[in-house]
Amino acid sequence: MIVAEGPVSAAAVFTTNKAVAAPVVVSREHLAASGGRARAIVANSGCANAATGAAGMQVARDMAAAAAEALECRSSDVLIASTGVIGVLLDIEKVRAGVTAATAALSVGGGGNAMKAIMTTDPFPKSAAAAVDTPQGTVTVGGIAKGSGMIEPRMATMLGFLTTDAQAEPAVLAAALRRVVDATFNAITVDGECSTNDCVYLLASGASGVTISRHDDPRLIEPLMQVAGHLAREIVRGGEGATKLVTVRVTGAQSHDDAWLAARTIANSPLVKTAIHGGDPNWGRLVAAAGRSGAAFDLDRASVSIGNVPLFVAGTPHDERADAAAGELQSTDVTIAVDLGMGGSHAATMWTCDFSAEYVRINAEYRT
Amino acid sequence: MIVAEGPVSAAAVFTTNKAVAAPVVVSREHLAASGGRARAIVANSGCANAATGAAGMQVARDMAAAAAEALECRSSDVLIASTGVIGVLLDIEKVRAGVTAATAALSVGGGGNAMKAIMTTDPFPKSAAAAVDTPQGTVTVGGIAKGSGMIEPRMATMLGFLTTDAQAEPAVLAAALRRVVDATFNAITVDGECSTNDCVYLLASGASGVTISRHDDPRLIEPLMQVAGHLAREIVRGGEGATKLVTVRVTGAQSHDDAWLAARTIANSPLVKTAIHGGDPNWGRLVAAAGRSGAAFDLDRASVSIGNVPLFVAGTPHDERADAAAGELQSTDVTIAVDLGMGGSHAATMWTCDFSAEYVRINAEYRT
Repeated sequence: MIVAEGPVSAAAVFTTNKAVAAPVVVSREHLAASGGRARAIVANSGCANAATGAAGMQVARDMAAAAAEALECRSSDVLIASTGVIGVLLDIEKVRAGVTAATAALSVGGGGNAMKAIMTTDPFPKSAAAAVDTPQGTVTVGGIAKGSGMIEPRMATMLGFLTTDAQAEPAVLAAALRRVVDATFNAITVDGECSTNDCVYLLASGASGVTISRHDDPRLIEPLMQVAGHLAREIVRGGEGATKLVTVRVTGAQSHDDAWLAARTIANSPLVKTAIHGGDPNWGRLVAAAGRSGAAFDLDRASVSIGNVPLFVAGTPHDERADAAAGELQSTDVTIAVDLGMGGSHAATMWTCDFSAEYVRINAEYRT
Repeated sequence: MIVAEGPVSAAAVFTTNKAVAAPVVVSREHLAASGGRARAIVANSGCANAATGAAGMQVARDMAAAAAEALECRSSDVLIASTGVIGVLLDIEKVRAGVTAATAALSVGGGGNAMKAIMTTDPFPKSAAAAVDTPQGTVTVGGIAKGSGMIEPRMATMLGFLTTDAQAEPAVLAAALRRVVDATFNAITVDGECSTNDCVYLLASGASGVTISRHDDPRLIEPLMQVAGHLAREIVRGGEGATKLVTVRVTGAQSHDDAWLAARTIANSPLVKTAIHGGDPNWGRLVAAAGRSGAAFDLDRASVSIGNVPLFVAGTPHDERADAAAGELQSTDVTIAVDLGMGGSHAATMWTCDFSAEYVRINAEYRT
């Protein structure tokens, strides 16, 4: 449980999956009912409470109600999140016991416990903090996340919980969160699977005394970007079977949408991801992925680099640099850059991981 | 080389990849210049002649010219196809030697050699034939294909070459081929990667004496569907690391596009494909994939079956049938059915394969 002293400004970004889980439905309702305010976030791991029908909706409401009772606040001031098995009903008695125990254990120093409590098979816990000094005071942002470590039955669920002591109205907070999430949590991929339960929550207590009235105010956006960006990249680094964090940079696109379309296609391409895993500077797969993405693409003007090594420049291969590029792929942090050759000013950056046989083993063999 | 007695009606469907390979560019030009007629198809494997710039275009033209010279026909009556490494220039001297040797070896019984000649690392050769008796005579369709067996550097390229002795104008043939390809070659996936070189050609000699004047004439469409459908499914069965042929059937969609969107998303989902590989009747992953596909989807009315076992019916899980569904997954031919719950009459069928660690090994480890 993450609990504020009282109801505070809150914002959320939810999964776009249409098979939306009960905790997402309930949290969205609560945020609307409270006018963008929340007192607490309650999360459980091990059971996603997704595709559980009317019974699952009731358990989700009861989960929020249990926390509201313990905290003596309204149910609509509670945001909930679940991660785990799809299609299994959440056990409300376990939730009630957990809420009682967590309420008793609430402390300002308890962030580390919360960070670990939301882990499932994540290989490591993920947290981040950033602060900005302003003439009006210091604004601090903190956050925890769980990623693509898969749980039984290994449906990836991404949860991100952010807090700040900035003061901001819910509408400002919502716009800031949307902007930050688009460039961070929405710019990562492990396997292209968008879960039924993904959510990112942001609570703003106002304790810093610094008032933010514009959603693009750098005093809030910058530390939020730092924290969310770090957490997002750590989720990729801890992706199933991942051995490398790969930054995919697309430039020269004719439009914003084209830049993202190409970046997303490259970042999810099994042939690109396996080539990187194998240390193979296979620029042909990058060209092919960009070409099939649907983005406008000019093969005669396109370029591809791996690390600092240009392998394909304005339509001309430079395979004599393949060994240098292979050296770049030995790193655990790899950057691949593709210019679509359209001469446009639009660009996009996504983060992905390499694709290993371990990914398949994790997702195929756990019942064998 | 596949050669007709003289120029005959011809149709083609090419890759939608914008990084289009030189042989595709040249063949498209030739088909336009000849008004939809061709005498021959010349194909090589081992080098895709893609992303090879102006030099690659010249080699592609020279390849067609070499065949035209050997056959004493116009260059524009020759369709060409290449499959193999991207970014490596095709060696025209090897092509010329191959054209000379193949021309000398042309024979009516040579189909088996052509079938094997286009293989790369395909685990088995692929051919099919079908015939329809009509009052006007027997219409025969034959075809060969190469699939997703990967070649150095293992960029999947799909080639399909079909012939028939039906008589049809090029426009009729083109419309018939488009219709058949949409339901066959365009309805398969191994890894979601669309290559720079994919093409399907159809030559119609007219030797049967049966004239087809409508593109939906069952005397042509039916044997074409049989041949193309068989070849397409065999490509999936021979997909990299594949151990199962999986038929994905989506029903209850609000629109044609929604049905295909959901089917394509499910058929390419790594979590669905690894679950099937592991024999796990994980209907939650099917629901999640349909939900994230972008198709209209109603979780409370959706249903999922594996084989003949309904595991999720109108929003209600039936996990008591999990063992029966796991039994269905033991087969090498698996059908999974998802009803999107929208009450629509639109449906789509795609074929995919399971996803094994062997896929990753093939694509990652060949330089280690």
